[in-house]
Amino acid sequence: MLHKPVDELAIGETVPSRGRTVTETDVVSFCYLTGNWLEIHSNEQVALRTPYGRRLVQGSLVFSIIPGLVTWDARYTIAMYAVDDMRFPRPVFIGDTITAQIAVEDVQMRDEDTGIATFAVKVLNQRSEVVQTFRMRILGRRAQAVAALLADGSLNPGDELPPPIDAQPPIDAQPTIDAQPPIGAGLQDA
Amino acid sequence: MLHKPVDELAIGETVPSRGRTVTETDVVSFCYLTGNWLEIHSNEQVALRTPYGRRLVQGSLVFSIIPGLVTWDARYTIAMYAVDDMRFPRPVFIGDTITAQIAVEDVQMRDEDTGIATFAVKVLNQRSEVVQTFRMRILGRRAQAVAALLADGSLNPGDELPPPIDAQPPIDAQPTIDAQPPIGAGLQDA
Repeated sequence: MLHKPVDELAIGETVPSRGRTVTETDVVSFCYLTGNWLEIHSNEQVALRTPYGRRLVQGSLVFSIIPGLVTWDARYTIAMYAVDDMRFPRPVFIGDTITAQIAVEDVQMRDEDTGIATFAVKVLNQRSEVVQTFRMRILGRRAQAVAALLADGSLNPGDELPPPIDAQPPIDAQPTIDAQPPIGAGLQDA
Repeated sequence: MLHKPVDELAIGETVPSRGRTVTETDVVSFCYLTGNWLEIHSNEQVALRTPYGRRLVQGSLVFSIIPGLVTWDARYTIAMYAVDDMRFPRPVFIGDTITAQIAVEDVQMRDEDTGIATFAVKVLNQRSEVVQTFRMRILGRRAQAVAALLADGSLNPGDELPPPIDAQPPIDAQPTIDAQPPIGAGLQDA
């Protein structure tokens, strides 16, 4: 998400996101790992009797996946500073494919070496419906601080994460599930 | 966290939390699951050159673990409604033991059947230092709604999660790491 020096971010600039299908394996693994076995996520029979009719993907799993969908540059990234205004306007179901629309909303310099960037994040499903929103503030390094660290050898140029961000496909280039043929559609012609 | 009907929660009431040691297995598994391999969490050599000097536990992992440390009652819990004001005042390191101080901060009835409870959450480490804070709003059922669902058979009394919340030890009863003998302390006497 922080892919350049914090003082080179422009307000309104967007950060490309990859997409990911959230599978049943992900949902069950997240139960394992977190110890949260709330039945709306883990008990199909309980979920059947809710308005959703099936298990929901954990909102905290969706939130946790987003940083894995964007490119970071470790040279410029110090720490997650704050998360605000997390909302869940629509449920995420097993099999949904999520991606994120991320925009730089604010940038504040903190001192000569660091600054805080606020990213407004919208998580979309395969129908481009917004399923989750939040603001994430990242504490990052300014260009001159990184240059100084590289000069004195305390930062490794190889810390940069490939591939370059410009090489990633934009969100619009990803096919939606609706655009794919239904299962077995080709079999009847054979 | 929501362990009773939402309209029976009192402002200022606290919710007991268990504790959990966050292990290296947890941190690496979270990298696997989320796809976020940011080096401050996954590269010991990069982490050595930060002010922390070692890998940090992911803030989103700490956040995700908290619902697994408290008792929920599925009959009263509908959904996570919002998360606000998440802050990370201190780092969490591998081997730290976290627990939560959770207080009911606000309760608003939404309609005849549902209400929204706001829980103020402080995550503490084994030295009782605050490492993370956030507010979580939960959409829950009111007592009369649960009674009606039980009466018409659409909710199973067995959905309740054992054990009863009163049976859990309070946070203060948990030994701190500082109270334990250092590794090998007993060996010199043998």
